[in-house]
Amino acid sequence: MEDDYIYPPELLRTIDFEKEHLATYEPSISMLNPEPNLLVRPLQRSDYNKGYMDLLLSALYVRDAGISQQEFEERWDKMKASGGSYYITVIEDTSTKKIIGNAVLHVEYKFLQPSIKRGRLEDIAVLDGYRGRQLGKLLMDVTTILCKKVGCFRVSLHCKDHFVSLYQKFRFYIDQAENIMWLDKNYLQS
Amino acid sequence: MEDDYIYPPELLRTIDFEKEHLATYEPSISMLNPEPNLLVRPLQRSDYNKGYMDLLLSALYVRDAGISQQEFEERWDKMKASGGSYYITVIEDTSTKKIIGNAVLHVEYKFLQPSIKRGRLEDIAVLDGYRGRQLGKLLMDVTTILCKKVGCFRVSLHCKDHFVSLYQKFRFYIDQAENIMWLDKNYLQS
Repeated sequence: MEDDYIYPPELLRTIDFEKEHLATYEPSISMLNPEPNLLVRPLQRSDYNKGYMDLLLSALYVRDAGISQQEFEERWDKMKASGGSYYITVIEDTSTKKIIGNAVLHVEYKFLQPSIKRGRLEDIAVLDGYRGRQLGKLLMDVTTILCKKVGCFRVSLHCKDHFVSLYQKFRFYIDQAENIMWLDKNYLQS
Repeated sequence: MEDDYIYPPELLRTIDFEKEHLATYEPSISMLNPEPNLLVRPLQRSDYNKGYMDLLLSALYVRDAGISQQEFEERWDKMKASGGSYYITVIEDTSTKKIIGNAVLHVEYKFLQPSIKRGRLEDIAVLDGYRGRQLGKLLMDVTTILCKKVGCFRVSLHCKDHFVSLYQKFRFYIDQAENIMWLDKNYLQS
């Protein structure tokens, strides 16, 4: 069911990855089927049953009990209903039926610009055991290309110091005079 | 028409600003009616006709032709339809019927946390001629309190160096090891 995807899978199929990739791959890999049993596609509503939450919890180092399937589906429906704000791309290992990679392009709508879309890259994650196989690079590449395909006028991400050189390979740069600031969690939870 | 608001105005009315404000005001001002003719409220669909785009264009220093009323309303409808993602607060000068202040709390939905909501503060702006009257401070205060009221588990903003000390007053802090990176505009527009 095409409707089960968080964004139209056609969007991935229209990308000519042979021409448009940003990173260098050695050995060269196929972008939508990087290995015989690995498939790159949009997140599906049924992916809760393919270990999607386990991937997020383990790969993003979050200590948390996670959410129930019902909560997952409610959130999925909210994201889907917002109409083109959540471009969540995953990699499925079709031999184990598990989600082993994740990348989010989140789009915020703006009034000010000719293009309504301001993008952010979030939650790039590859499951332990699948690392060192160019999959993180591939997810970054696919997501960065999606930014352009969907028409973002501006895109950012935030990262720790040791990831800066990685993201520079995907044409991200630092403006040294700019800071990201966080609201005190004690205030939020008070 | 209550339906004309981007978020329910009740949300502002339920905040006890006398107790909950974060900044210090001298002289003390009323949060929802800071001066006799100034009113703090959610953005309305009809605010295009009250100079909303002029405020954004001038106060955020964007060189742009802006958008038409029809485009504005289409974007407004998209934001409203996304269901609780856009908390846009404005200040209207009721004597001139012009919008003179703006602050955005944008909420991204997440799967990972017990709370679905990850907030960002954006586009805090006060019209030239209204500055020095504690209105920027008031907009920051209202928006920060909204973050808590709507249940964000995490909130950030990004800013230039010279604004850091201002935002620290509202309980925002810098993590020095963290960077914001921008995608090359030449790539996006290629």
